[in-house]
Amino acid sequence: MGTSVLNAARQLGVDLGSVCGGVGLCGRCQVTPMFGDFPKHGINVAESALTDYTNTETDYAVRKGLGQGRRLGCMADICADVVVDIPSTSQVHRQVIRKELELVDLVIDPVSTLHYVQMDPATLEETIGTTRRLTMALHEQWNLEGVNVDPATLRDLQAAGDNCTVAIRDGVVSAVWPGFHETTYGVAIDVGSTTIAGYLLDLITGEQLASGGLMNPQIRFGEDLMSRVSYVMMNEGGDRLLTEAVQEALNDLIGDLAKQASIERHDILEITLVGNPIMHHLFLGLDPRPLGEAPFKLTTDEAINVTASSLDIQAHPNAAVYVLPCIAGHVGADTAGVILSDQPHTRSPIALLVDVGTNAEIVLGNQDRLLAASSPTGPAFEGAQISSGQRAAPGAIERVRIDRETLEPRYKIIGSDAWSTDDPSLEPTGICGSGIIEAVAELFLAGVLSEDGVMLDQPSDRVVADGRTFSYVLADGILVTQNDVRAIQLAKAALYAGVRLLMDKLEIDSVDEIRLAGAFGSHIDVTYAMVLGLIPDCDLKKVHAAGNAAGAGAVMALLNRQARREIETVVRRIEKIETAIEPAFQAHFVEAMAFPHKTAAYPNLSQKIELPQRAVPTTQGRRRRRPPQEDSP
Amino acid sequence: MGTSVLNAARQLGVDLGSVCGGVGLCGRCQVTPMFGDFPKHGINVAESALTDYTNTETDYAVRKGLGQGRRLGCMADICADVVVDIPSTSQVHRQVIRKELELVDLVIDPVSTLHYVQMDPATLEETIGTTRRLTMALHEQWNLEGVNVDPATLRDLQAAGDNCTVAIRDGVVSAVWPGFHETTYGVAIDVGSTTIAGYLLDLITGEQLASGGLMNPQIRFGEDLMSRVSYVMMNEGGDRLLTEAVQEALNDLIGDLAKQASIERHDILEITLVGNPIMHHLFLGLDPRPLGEAPFKLTTDEAINVTASSLDIQAHPNAAVYVLPCIAGHVGADTAGVILSDQPHTRSPIALLVDVGTNAEIVLGNQDRLLAASSPTGPAFEGAQISSGQRAAPGAIERVRIDRETLEPRYKIIGSDAWSTDDPSLEPTGICGSGIIEAVAELFLAGVLSEDGVMLDQPSDRVVADGRTFSYVLADGILVTQNDVRAIQLAKAALYAGVRLLMDKLEIDSVDEIRLAGAFGSHIDVTYAMVLGLIPDCDLKKVHAAGNAAGAGAVMALLNRQARREIETVVRRIEKIETAIEPAFQAHFVEAMAFPHKTAAYPNLSQKIELPQRAVPTTQGRRRRRPPQEDSP
Repeated sequence: MGTSVLNAARQLGVDLGSVCGGVGLCGRCQVTPMFGDFPKHGINVAESALTDYTNTETDYAVRKGLGQGRRLGCMADICADVVVDIPSTSQVHRQVIRKELELVDLVIDPVSTLHYVQMDPATLEETIGTTRRLTMALHEQWNLEGVNVDPATLRDLQAAGDNCTVAIRDGVVSAVWPGFHETTYGVAIDVGSTTIAGYLLDLITGEQLASGGLMNPQIRFGEDLMSRVSYVMMNEGGDRLLTEAVQEALNDLIGDLAKQASIERHDILEITLVGNPIMHHLFLGLDPRPLGEAPFKLTTDEAINVTASSLDIQAHPNAAVYVLPCIAGHVGADTAGVILSDQPHTRSPIALLVDVGTNAEIVLGNQDRLLAASSPTGPAFEGAQISSGQRAAPGAIERVRIDRETLEPRYKIIGSDAWSTDDPSLEPTGICGSGIIEAVAELFLAGVLSEDGVMLDQPSDRVVADGRTFSYVLADGILVTQNDVRAIQLAKAALYAGVRLLMDKLEIDSVDEIRLAGAFGSHIDVTYAMVLGLIPDCDLKKVHAAGNAAGAGAVMALLNRQARREIETVVRRIEKIETAIEPAFQAHFVEAMAFPHKTAAYPNLSQKIELPQRAVPTTQGRRRRRPPQEDSP
Repeated sequence: MGTSVLNAARQLGVDLGSVCGGVGLCGRCQVTPMFGDFPKHGINVAESALTDYTNTETDYAVRKGLGQGRRLGCMADICADVVVDIPSTSQVHRQVIRKELELVDLVIDPVSTLHYVQMDPATLEETIGTTRRLTMALHEQWNLEGVNVDPATLRDLQAAGDNCTVAIRDGVVSAVWPGFHETTYGVAIDVGSTTIAGYLLDLITGEQLASGGLMNPQIRFGEDLMSRVSYVMMNEGGDRLLTEAVQEALNDLIGDLAKQASIERHDILEITLVGNPIMHHLFLGLDPRPLGEAPFKLTTDEAINVTASSLDIQAHPNAAVYVLPCIAGHVGADTAGVILSDQPHTRSPIALLVDVGTNAEIVLGNQDRLLAASSPTGPAFEGAQISSGQRAAPGAIERVRIDRETLEPRYKIIGSDAWSTDDPSLEPTGICGSGIIEAVAELFLAGVLSEDGVMLDQPSDRVVADGRTFSYVLADGILVTQNDVRAIQLAKAALYAGVRLLMDKLEIDSVDEIRLAGAFGSHIDVTYAMVLGLIPDCDLKKVHAAGNAAGAGAVMALLNRQARREIETVVRRIEKIETAIEPAFQAHFVEAMAFPHKTAAYPNLSQKIELPQRAVPTTQGRRRRRPPQEDSP
């Protein structure tokens, strides 16, 4: 009798999976033998090339089902030349595609692997400790050498008995279950200032079993990042409260995900985390204050490996947490996640990645060079500091159109698909980030705003005087004021100036691709982003929302160990640009206040949108930003 | 100007210490320059060969004192050929002698080393995380490469500022202090079933700052080991209670030691632990039950590295615990400590090491082969199961002499130096292990006991009838009964049979050295041990008490990292003998019941003590142990 298909595959280095080690329990080594003529290989395979179906396979088929023509590779022995097809689900490093996370072609190769072992029983004659009986079995049955056993698993090892399943992480037994145990789970979490998003995945199959999100409860200490840092500065022990709040939220989220997927939270063995530097410091229990003042000192720009229990995260008692590296004081592990998921460092087109929050984190470059910076946009893009602004939540105006002639608006609110003109019953509660951007852009396109952002008096009831300036009445009680326009101008000028600064460093005038990450990127209409000059000109077909790219990066680091090494290496070679000390940033910032500051700079946009013909600069607007000598002639 | 003496020493690979890295803070690089003619080297050294005393040295001398003629090696620059003497206190790997622990020539080379570093400050221009600024400084200032930073230290690192002292353990920064920090401490603990002994040491100098002990509070769950295991078997969650009890005791002990030495317990960075297998399992939070029944399954026979916090031990928040390896189900990490401190594996004489507790752990061998076994002596040697027995405590009879003619006794009690005949006020409370051994041996030497251990009627008021047997009245209310003699016979036969079994395995008839470890070994008079046949014949000059050899081994593992590798390697090659399955053990056991079972076997002893002439075997004694056919002729 020959060797089994599984053994033959292993000897040939073929990628055929197994958790049970070849005893017909796990079914991960399923193959489809092929019979008949294979002229290319010059062989004819008879059905007798493999041994008959075994009772073990029949048992497995009854228990779990075995597809037509399928065999268990560990049970079918090879008697003659044979051709077998290895279905993708039987490959160790199978690839998956996660469309909702924009993950394509991800190889499943998690840091933890499961191994079923049968230890030699302890005897009076051979006094060998259980840990060594285990490592000897792993050597004999799995050809694993030099495996160590984490002392934290010893109690489970005692209880497990001689036949058990172990998880091995980085050459160390990190978990033990009695008998055959075939699943293990991981959670990837993106800790945002506003929302915390999580994904629960099966680490063996790569399947996403649940996803969810919740509000960051730190909001009660301050709406935006800087107000939370201020809270810590003003309140002794405040950072502890913020840390406890986020750790509690992580536990709530993990509990929700486990419940959704009907699994036990203590079967979650791996966790990956991303977040901006302040969130990063807070969920790690570090003091965020150094990040709140120059020189914006990052405690570490390296990846972090800790136990979940050290962060008070409830999962498997020996669960591990991997935190992606932060890049700079204002460019966090979330941006590392965006880079990992978007992979600009592997391609030749120059990509611009923008993740907008209280700061805009900006990455620019390609396989040759990658630059990163953070621009102080402030929270206007999130609807904060806007007179009728609110967070993106049901009731918030998110789409705005203004009739170029009548100046009458129509809008959509979150939670409804109808335009306000079609459904007069809509009751908007405020205006969110994407809404204010569209409103300002439409006001500019309708000629209500000058190129310099001054709201001009109009023969329309929609434009009302408000002291020495004018406001636009978007809906009942919801106005776009001159100050709102100024806030958006400041924010967009900061973003653009940051992008421009990086383009200067790369000595380029245009970018090949733009990815807008995060909730902001998903809601914003890129055309309006260009109308306002948030982003540089680019073929609109090459401008995409990246979804939760930071979360996608966390998922990649969860499912693939190489992804961790990759982002650690890439982060190290990113050129970090600190906008605060670059004189060019100030110059770009001033120049970028106008809408769009250079029409000629947007060839792609001008094909699509007619920019206002009568953009009348006001002296008021000019006086503030131009030197007097230019104003006088 | 030339290089400093410290730098020159480093370049030449000379063993000159430094904690501050050469900035004149620590004073560990002190040297004594030598001037004048050195004909052997063919040079004459002028005082100008070194630069003048610096202000830093003057400051140091004022602050800490600087011996006559001493210089700080980091401050004195070399201008010409020079001869310097390096005092032993300035050597990195200096040797110390710990007499009370029988430690000779121990090289101080702890797993943690201290390094003072001055990091480049964080700037807006260079966004490098603090961890990397630290590792870069360690590279530049200490030539250390590839150092990682334990995430658990990050908060201390944040608070420490740019000039700080770090502890590095196995290439990982494990502790951080602000500014210059020059001391770090370690505790070695021997967890015995009855007492827990601890030693607090300065890890830089190797100095022992405190020692102490306390009763093992587990005693409330059972006097001896097996009764504690029984408690766990009978009571759900009992092992948790036992674990909590010992962990609490460890914390009490560490607190006591720190108080004695006037240090803070959170400055204790390293802890080493030894104990028998059941103590080992209990302080690690493992279930001891597998050790209580065949096949006496040891969960691990490897050394264990864990954090102190995982064992609920209060010390430095990132303190590490190293547990020496157990050897077999009945041969624990305490025996590993005995081996490490006695070093039989490095010498050619055949050494016998005996550590007597509820079981006697026995090691026999030399540099070529080392065997270990455990003999089930029971607790008689500890004073348990003896009618008037008690633990070795003040009031217990520990020395006994019986007049060969009058059969009148005299004795000493713990807590007094006087014999009872000189101080009639002594009020003995009972008899401890060494006392009962001397009493039985003296009774045998006085002819009161037969060779078979039967107490014979005597014309003396001291020997009184007690049912069908006789007892000896040692003191008011303190009798040595026939059952007491039987208990000692069983215990000593078990011990001897174990030793004999190992001698058989080694194919030897005598041993070259004997070490008696532990409290029992310290109290027992080795002559009486031989009279009773506890140990085989040996030159009495080569029989020694080893003191707390297990604790000494723990201290070695604390002070010297190589000692850890050494014992891990030695333990692996020890041949473990399980007495329970060796038929020869039973045979030796039966044979060893008599006192001394073969006078001829003790040539060394017979030079010293006259064995009784009238050793009259009784039929009663013979009937129980010899086959009937031998009894009849």
